[in-house]
Amino acid sequence: MTKQERATRTRDALIRSAAREFDQHGYAPARLSVISSGAGVSPGALHFHFENKAAVAAAVEAEAAAALRRTARNVHREGSNALQSLADTTHALAGLLREDVVVRAGFRLSCSDVRRTDLNLRQEWQSCVQQRLAEAADEGVLAAGIGRRRDLARTIVAATIGLEALCRDNGEWLSPGTVTGLWRTLLPMLTGAATLAGLEPAGSRAAVDRAHAPVG
Amino acid sequence: MTKQERATRTRDALIRSAAREFDQHGYAPARLSVISSGAGVSPGALHFHFENKAAVAAAVEAEAAAALRRTARNVHREGSNALQSLADTTHALAGLLREDVVVRAGFRLSCSDVRRTDLNLRQEWQSCVQQRLAEAADEGVLAAGIGRRRDLARTIVAATIGLEALCRDNGEWLSPGTVTGLWRTLLPMLTGAATLAGLEPAGSRAAVDRAHAPVG
Repeated sequence: MTKQERATRTRDALIRSAAREFDQHGYAPARLSVISSGAGVSPGALHFHFENKAAVAAAVEAEAAAALRRTARNVHREGSNALQSLADTTHALAGLLREDVVVRAGFRLSCSDVRRTDLNLRQEWQSCVQQRLAEAADEGVLAAGIGRRRDLARTIVAATIGLEALCRDNGEWLSPGTVTGLWRTLLPMLTGAATLAGLEPAGSRAAVDRAHAPVG
Repeated sequence: MTKQERATRTRDALIRSAAREFDQHGYAPARLSVISSGAGVSPGALHFHFENKAAVAAAVEAEAAAALRRTARNVHREGSNALQSLADTTHALAGLLREDVVVRAGFRLSCSDVRRTDLNLRQEWQSCVQQRLAEAADEGVLAAGIGRRRDLARTIVAATIGLEALCRDNGEWLSPGTVTGLWRTLLPMLTGAATLAGLEPAGSRAAVDRAHAPVG
């Protein structure tokens, strides 16, 4: 292993250890000494990679944002209709939040008032939802007029961010069943009966598989 | 002012000061010295009323829960139909979250992982939503069958808790306009055209006025 490889590996381990600490305790109580020992390195090694706690948190958020974008791109790639793609992306995001501590910590950090950064995962997610709805309108499958589209986007964003917030009490809120129930409720508001018949609130199987595929 | 009155007044001031501190910084970083000085009393006076930070936080949550219950009861009193009552209660809750730092802090504390108590404002809100939907079913105005009622309740809870979470970034998420948009989207899922025509997504004026009325 080269020096460069070792440095990358240490940095990744620190990000993952920091994510565990932020996910469990939040930003303010998180301790750098716990983060470095969780990554199996010395405090000095941590400071070689990150200037301070804010820099570690920023790295966790950046990594989470990259995972969110990668997942959205993977799910969307095949070009099923934009509404199915939106439901599929939500299922994939729920999966990430369930399984990937970095993504979970990233969302948690993005709602921390203690620190503000330019990157905001919630806003990234909101942009993603708005973009899919705009595409659905272009495809002619969105039932609602332009005036109602803002209501729809906000309702979808609020409901999904709500699932993420509620999940901290009870993991059931991000289970595939709950996300499917959400789309069973929302899809009939978004499109007419003909399109609706072809949509799968539980997510299209292929897309869910693809969500975790390596970047293509 | 009797000794008793003075004690009650000090306790209230401490709860309000603590709410400001928890709302702004979260539970872990909140400092008792800031809370007592914010209430204009000595640290000793704080300790006369509360054993520790957890006890102060529990008092804030209890006060927030009382405000939520009082508001739900005030809104519901007149017995308009249960769906209108549900929309009205959401508007009233959004108003409380906008204007009452104790309620805002109570909800924020209830999503803090650092401490767990028996009281959970989010669960109280969920019960309230479930109860209104059950009433709507009894009144025969709920379109959905029993199987879909759970999806509806979860979607409504997730969307409203999502507004509360998103509001910490941007107050617009709890504005009357956003809450109205939410109900414009959700009400058509809940009931048929005949009932829908009589419902007001913006909240019935009388109920919104009543929300802040003294307990009757």
